[in-house]
Amino acid sequence: MRESVARAVRIIGAGGPEVLAIAEVDEPTCGSKDVLVDIAAAGLNRADCLQRRGFYPAPKGVVADIPGLEFAGTVLGVGDTVSRWAPGDRVMGICAGGAMSTRIAANEDTLLPVPESMSFTDAAAVPEVFMTAYDALAQGGLRAGHSVLIHAAGSGVGTAAIQLVKRAGAIAVGSSRSDDKLVKAKSLGLSESVLVTDKLFAKKLKACHGKGADIILDFVGAAYLSENIKALAPQGTLVVIGLLGGVSAELPLGLLLAKRARVIGTVLRSRSLAEKSSLTRELADNVLPGFETGELVPVIDRVMSMEDIAEAHRFLESNASFGKIVMAW
Amino acid sequence: MRESVARAVRIIGAGGPEVLAIAEVDEPTCGSKDVLVDIAAAGLNRADCLQRRGFYPAPKGVVADIPGLEFAGTVLGVGDTVSRWAPGDRVMGICAGGAMSTRIAANEDTLLPVPESMSFTDAAAVPEVFMTAYDALAQGGLRAGHSVLIHAAGSGVGTAAIQLVKRAGAIAVGSSRSDDKLVKAKSLGLSESVLVTDKLFAKKLKACHGKGADIILDFVGAAYLSENIKALAPQGTLVVIGLLGGVSAELPLGLLLAKRARVIGTVLRSRSLAEKSSLTRELADNVLPGFETGELVPVIDRVMSMEDIAEAHRFLESNASFGKIVMAW
Repeated sequence: MRESVARAVRIIGAGGPEVLAIAEVDEPTCGSKDVLVDIAAAGLNRADCLQRRGFYPAPKGVVADIPGLEFAGTVLGVGDTVSRWAPGDRVMGICAGGAMSTRIAANEDTLLPVPESMSFTDAAAVPEVFMTAYDALAQGGLRAGHSVLIHAAGSGVGTAAIQLVKRAGAIAVGSSRSDDKLVKAKSLGLSESVLVTDKLFAKKLKACHGKGADIILDFVGAAYLSENIKALAPQGTLVVIGLLGGVSAELPLGLLLAKRARVIGTVLRSRSLAEKSSLTRELADNVLPGFETGELVPVIDRVMSMEDIAEAHRFLESNASFGKIVMAW
Repeated sequence: MRESVARAVRIIGAGGPEVLAIAEVDEPTCGSKDVLVDIAAAGLNRADCLQRRGFYPAPKGVVADIPGLEFAGTVLGVGDTVSRWAPGDRVMGICAGGAMSTRIAANEDTLLPVPESMSFTDAAAVPEVFMTAYDALAQGGLRAGHSVLIHAAGSGVGTAAIQLVKRAGAIAVGSSRSDDKLVKAKSLGLSESVLVTDKLFAKKLKACHGKGADIILDFVGAAYLSENIKALAPQGTLVVIGLLGGVSAELPLGLLLAKRARVIGTVLRSRSLAEKSSLTRELADNVLPGFETGELVPVIDRVMSMEDIAEAHRFLESNASFGKIVMAW
């Protein structure tokens, strides 16, 4: 293998998992502010599946045919002006694409140190979900005592959110269509569970929390919108971070005003470097210490070989996983 | 007239302006933290019309059949523990009902001093619209340089918002269905005007502000919802403070997420005393000085006699007014 060649998952067309193939690719160019990372493991995300199907193209300037939004590995080299990292450092981070590769060139400000006691496969399960959950909860105005409804409590972001909510002294209420996942989520700090059988969860939530949820984290979008507004407490905030259940739905504005509630749409991928850097610093300051004390843990369903990427996509899309699926080289 | 008797506008049934009548009513009881005010003038609001039609009942504990959400007048007496006000003081304030009366008992913390140079009829046009506009702009995160789309630019809240936006060093863009109102609003500090002829205003807005509006203040609700999301800039905020155009509509969640935008529903009337007191203090500190320097002015279409309350409702509902209609005893 030539020195300037990397291996990566390539999307060779839009479609099912069969459009994914391991291929040799050019090693990415390392700019003066970049860090070249030898990737050991990368976390799999729903966005990877959407991108594979052609629905979620990489932003401009980002490699278009290599998926992957988070990674962990070892610094191989650094650009001219990089002072914070040196070869041999263990790092993890989010990116806008290209993490399912043996190499990535990442801006130095988007990297986090991997805690000493943490393996690369554990680390690969951290950046995207803890950053997403931390940021969404911050946008929701999380405070001690708040009750927070976390949909898809068994998802990667869900399992991260449960832990962050509990750590903030707030009450985590989880929803899932799987009773089994709710039982597992209980051990992460879920106070109450709402089994969603018919999409009508507001009544069930209010049976345990009369005033409703101060914050709701939602990945479903359209199919849950109206019910989410019903489930909100006065002055509550619905943070929509995914649209797995459709992209447009009726918003009950009367109820929104009566509750003085808010709906926030959010995504990480398209943010500017400055915003990503700032969020990375917040995560380093406020979240990483939790892994060192053991208050926070990466929740991993399984680690799979990168060669099995197609099977991993199939498994994620079967909705059977609890926590993250991590791909290792 | 007995001493304990006041005069007031009474709603004697749900319906058109004909259900309004001037009647003798009991003088309100002044609690230990209350201030008894001899009302000179009261501002008319859309909410009065809704209440008259039976759609917007007074909150629990508030007089049910006397409309009126803001007033200006002279302190007649104070409760045992009131220290901030004394008989003879000129005051103005918002309330949850009962302002269309010669007397009101208002909690001391919800009152503002009337600036020395300001008449009572001018003062009666200030509290509700400047508090609503100030609070809505604050919730939208107003900063210098922001572009703010203000729907119904010729309304009471609209004319207040234009002035507050300009004063904050931001750019006020106004919409109206009336070209005449847009011309008048220009003199208040409107930078750009959008004549709404077919509800499709996003394109017109983007013709003058390419990236869209950082904040939108909306009174229309459903009929404008989808177009409002289109008109928002990335990370913009739609603040919905009225639902004159319907209470439920399709929300384009895909666009909301792509823009990382937010929708906030807000009302003043139902807020707790603590919240109203806090907002009153903010208004005293941040807005009242503007009336003394002349940066801010109450915008009044006309002052009418309280005896003509039915005619005033008809005039407000004709949508012909620019700024406030003030009722004087």
